[in-house]
Amino acid sequence: MEIAVLRGREAFEIEEVDVPSFAPDEVLVRVVVSGVCASELEPWVEGPPDGEVRYPGHEVSGVVAEVGADVDGIAVGDRVGVWVTERGFAEYVAVKAAYCFPAGGGPLDEALAEPIACAANAVEAADVRLGDDVVVIGAGFMGNLVHNLVALRGVRQLIVADARPDALERAAKLGATRVVDVTRESLPDVVRSLTEGRGADVTFECTGTQAALSTTGDTTRMSGKIAIVGYHQGRAREIPLAHWNWMAFTIVNAHFREVATILRGMSIGMRLLAAGELSMAGLVTHRFPLDEINDAFATLRDKPDGFAKAVIVFPEP
Amino acid sequence: MEIAVLRGREAFEIEEVDVPSFAPDEVLVRVVVSGVCASELEPWVEGPPDGEVRYPGHEVSGVVAEVGADVDGIAVGDRVGVWVTERGFAEYVAVKAAYCFPAGGGPLDEALAEPIACAANAVEAADVRLGDDVVVIGAGFMGNLVHNLVALRGVRQLIVADARPDALERAAKLGATRVVDVTRESLPDVVRSLTEGRGADVTFECTGTQAALSTTGDTTRMSGKIAIVGYHQGRAREIPLAHWNWMAFTIVNAHFREVATILRGMSIGMRLLAAGELSMAGLVTHRFPLDEINDAFATLRDKPDGFAKAVIVFPEP
Amino acid sequence: MEIAVLRGREAFEIEEVDVPSFAPDEVLVRVVVSGVCASELEPWVEGPPDGEVRYPGHEVSGVVAEVGADVDGIAVGDRVGVWVTERGFAEYVAVKAAYCFPAGGGPLDEALAEPIACAANAVEAADVRLGDDVVVIGAGFMGNLVHNLVALRGVRQLIVADARPDALERAAKLGATRVVDVTRESLPDVVRSLTEGRGADVTFECTGTQAALSTTGDTTRMSGKIAIVGYHQGRAREIPLAHWNWMAFTIVNAHFREVATILRGMSIGMRLLAAGELSMAGLVTHRFPLDEINDAFATLRDKPDGFAKAVIVFPEP
Amino acid sequence: MEIAVLRGREAFEIEEVDVPSFAPDEVLVRVVVSGVCASELEPWVEGPPDGEVRYPGHEVSGVVAEVGADVDGIAVGDRVGVWVTERGFAEYVAVKAAYCFPAGGGPLDEALAEPIACAANAVEAADVRLGDDVVVIGAGFMGNLVHNLVALRGVRQLIVADARPDALERAAKLGATRVVDVTRESLPDVVRSLTEGRGADVTFECTGTQAALSTTGDTTRMSGKIAIVGYHQGRAREIPLAHWNWMAFTIVNAHFREVATILRGMSIGMRLLAAGELSMAGLVTHRFPLDEINDAFATLRDKPDGFAKAVIVFPEP
Repeated sequence: MEIAVLRGREAFEIEEVDVPSFAPDEVLVRVVVSGVCASELEPWVEGPPDGEVRYPGHEVSGVVAEVGADVDGIAVGDRVGVWVTERGFAEYVAVKAAYCFPAGGGPLDEALAEPIACAANAVEAADVRLGDDVVVIGAGFMGNLVHNLVALRGVRQLIVADARPDALERAAKLGATRVVDVTRESLPDVVRSLTEGRGADVTFECTGTQAALSTTGDTTRMSGKIAIVGYHQGRAREIPLAHWNWMAFTIVNAHFREVATILRGMSIGMRLLAAGELSMAGLVTHRFPLDEINDAFATLRDKPDGFAKAVIVFPEP
Repeated sequence: MEIAVLRGREAFEIEEVDVPSFAPDEVLVRVVVSGVCASELEPWVEGPPDGEVRYPGHEVSGVVAEVGADVDGIAVGDRVGVWVTERGFAEYVAVKAAYCFPAGGGPLDEALAEPIACAANAVEAADVRLGDDVVVIGAGFMGNLVHNLVALRGVRQLIVADARPDALERAAKLGATRVVDVTRESLPDVVRSLTEGRGADVTFECTGTQAALSTTGDTTRMSGKIAIVGYHQGRAREIPLAHWNWMAFTIVNAHFREVATILRGMSIGMRLLAAGELSMAGLVTHRFPLDEINDAFATLRDKPDGFAKAVIVFPEP
Repeated sequence: MEIAVLRGREAFEIEEVDVPSFAPDEVLVRVVVSGVCASELEPWVEGPPDGEVRYPGHEVSGVVAEVGADVDGIAVGDRVGVWVTERGFAEYVAVKAAYCFPAGGGPLDEALAEPIACAANAVEAADVRLGDDVVVIGAGFMGNLVHNLVALRGVRQLIVADARPDALERAAKLGATRVVDVTRESLPDVVRSLTEGRGADVTFECTGTQAALSTTGDTTRMSGKIAIVGYHQGRAREIPLAHWNWMAFTIVNAHFREVATILRGMSIGMRLLAAGELSMAGLVTHRFPLDEINDAFATLRDKPDGFAKAVIVFPEP
Repeated sequence: MEIAVLRGREAFEIEEVDVPSFAPDEVLVRVVVSGVCASELEPWVEGPPDGEVRYPGHEVSGVVAEVGADVDGIAVGDRVGVWVTERGFAEYVAVKAAYCFPAGGGPLDEALAEPIACAANAVEAADVRLGDDVVVIGAGFMGNLVHNLVALRGVRQLIVADARPDALERAAKLGATRVVDVTRESLPDVVRSLTEGRGADVTFECTGTQAALSTTGDTTRMSGKIAIVGYHQGRAREIPLAHWNWMAFTIVNAHFREVATILRGMSIGMRLLAAGELSMAGLVTHRFPLDEINDAFATLRDKPDGFAKAVIVFPEP
């Protein structure tokens, strides 16, 4: 089968390797879609250390091709989202049956189990309550996913902020009760005016930038919650802690590494997706075949107008 | 002004009394709608003790007519749902400004703040989680309200059971993912088949009957929750506690008497109603003028086909 | 090695069997103590079905004798409490390394991991808060364990009720702030007088009887919690649900079957025991060698004065 | 009566003013102790704006001298801790009856209701669980209070860090399971070695310094909690958010401004104090009469060896 291997700076190559073997408690999944994750961008740009190679790819859905001897409850032909940590840009992956979740009858090329799990865990950790006012800063792919799940929780208002007109347009289509172009309006002012001066019950920071992080302290009500979804790489962030402490904010870092938590988020998200309660429509904006994987990563790097998410799609046999 | 006074068995009379005075922290509200609550039925049927009278009525919405000297943030003409504990079947009520909640621009004759508060508190207390499977037993007015609020919480399935075809029809219109006529199907069997044998994460008991209560133990998953919304009057209920203990159920009695909790539920519910996120469409099935209040109660007693809720509506001036 | 096998009514026999083999992820534990659980009494009295035998015993602590090839972090000679579901009345048990918890340096014949896990989970599920007033009904072994763990949670008052003078004496020694002999005093009256008329924040029911269960509704404050620890075998229990609903009680069934929950409770309890923060002193009242196991069960059946817990103790080699 | 008024830099003066009048729902309290709060130090050092004066003092306990006409449940002679926001360095304060909490029979000069409330709320917000390992950084007065309340919650280990030998000595006397002199040892190393490499379940930051804040990220386990009790005045703090996000920390700002929350913390703390479950012994280290209030503040500023807390004590009549 074919698999993408990262051999240098911005340089995936396609290798021919054996289809992976699988243990008695595993299944073999024919990959239909494998998402390009923002966290993989920097490793692609910089390439692996000299003399080493990498096999990334962890946002995988597909169709069960074979099942291990001890596997119950999953059958050949089942459509599933799966949890793998690498080697996902390939025609097949081997994965524990317990890490597979039914994908229902919708389009598999949008059934990106891993980011859905992350977003579901973020929304659960932030514990959005009935009637809350919620702000989502950042209307990229993760912001959109958080947005879609927050919208399922019975909030009063869902205010989405971004600096890109195309992202705001997408957020409006997804049903934001208000979109805010931060290049034209003050987000804290808008939030105050929409919340009787109180601030939002929960603010989700989905950009990973210092500017957005700083803003959260002015959009959130006293004793409210700030959920940090964006990945704040690079230098330390500055937080005006005297103010945040005075406001009694709870800060939730919505990024979970424990397997049980990841699987719980995946189960929740895939249940909703399979039941048609969660829609991913419009979130996957760019599709590439495996042999154009470097173009897929370049698209993520360049973020052309209208970009939310690039994926590798494999041809149906 | 006119007010309904209960003077005997099934015998309201309309009295002429002074418009109530109001304190500096209160407002005077011209009543638009006053709901007939099931808990008031028995007192109406039995009448007050000899020589006494009663002034019931606690499900009130209307328009602010005058405001006390110390009142901020509420103005004459505001449309509000309010919390009163009696004397609500009247043209005017006096109520603390802090007990008034904006009703938004929708139809006031459906803005029944008190039962909305009860249902909101029930759903919050049961802590419905993202992706849950939920069963609601009883598709009367309170069951419908719980249904509508659960539907806002991002559940996977919302299974509604009743024995009345008209109630099930209404539940289906409200968006139940499955309705179960318990005279024709076994609810536990249906739930098991829809939940991979596991049972529902939460079951709401909204009937007040022993039979429905008994059923909840067979529709709920291990370590799941049973929320008791129905009012279990009369003799003690029998619970197979060895089984319930084995199943590690948590039982939530969703009936709150603390003022802070009631006001919190009312705030949540009215925020959602005013924002158009919660709909009451179709739940108020029977409307009467004040001088037909005995007919309104008789309708509640007789529950004709299609009945969910009777209210007293006052003519706009 | 020797193992106790139940072959008839009140009839254990001691069998000679092979020391169990163990898998690569398991360890072999030389048993030091194996507790007699109240849930095993009825099976002993009634005996197994004709032609069948039983190997009970699930409250086991001991010393690691051998470790499987894949086991990390546990060594021969480690003193551990373990989770097994049967075959615990034996000289050796084989158990997954993940089901073993360090027992510290205290007396192993009191390190009964399984009931400690149950009690820890009960106290965690009831979510006792700082400054709470707590009632424990039943001062037998499980009541004592719950008592000891509640006492670690920073409560204001810990009121213990029982009908047996010896049990109340033990509760007083364990530090109850008040003991109540229910044959002489009204527990609800005492609780009201000690809680400014409010009732307890949490009541733990640790007897399994209808009478105690009925009492909990009169000892618990509005919106308080009733934690059911006792096992309510036999006929259905009667609950005055109209009253309980009015009082907005939450009822927690503190009996968990999910492996992850059991292991979490065991981890918590054994951490506290090993650190010397939780004491079991005085709770094991009767000790027997394996060949007197029928006497141990008879003692549980007869509950002589001063009885709390019988265990089988194995001689040190 | 006498009251301290701040008129300039480090310049309180004692004024003679009328005993305050009190409303029907208030009581008049003869002050016994009034604590000097660290948050008042900077205003004392800098003095009020030109032409203005200040009447600080908000950590007050005393004896009820008179009660308003509408007050129930409090009587003249009752010993109480109270919530006031200013004018506490005075012989009398007028305060709502609802803001008074029984102080029990212990020494009133240690019954500092307001800081006890803050610490109780911090420990409740951090939700310390049974068996947790807890780190407290900072063994000053607030750190000691947090320490004492955490010790009531059934933790396994309570590790206290400071740089001052006298503070560590006091922490050891209060029962820390381990004290760490951060000038001699690496706190993260110690914590790792005591927690099987995992880190603490909860770290309380009680110093208000960047250095301690930075350390919390290395003492707390994945998905653990960081509770910020210290007041982080001055410039913004730097937080390595990529690491904190990876570790999925929840950050609790334990500083509450909502009246209901303050009163709840005060109720909890004073219940425990009055019942003798919470001890303040040894935490009040320096006592001054009202006319030496500038010395009291200077002592807080200079923090002599052995200093934890200065209070103003009023002579018993």
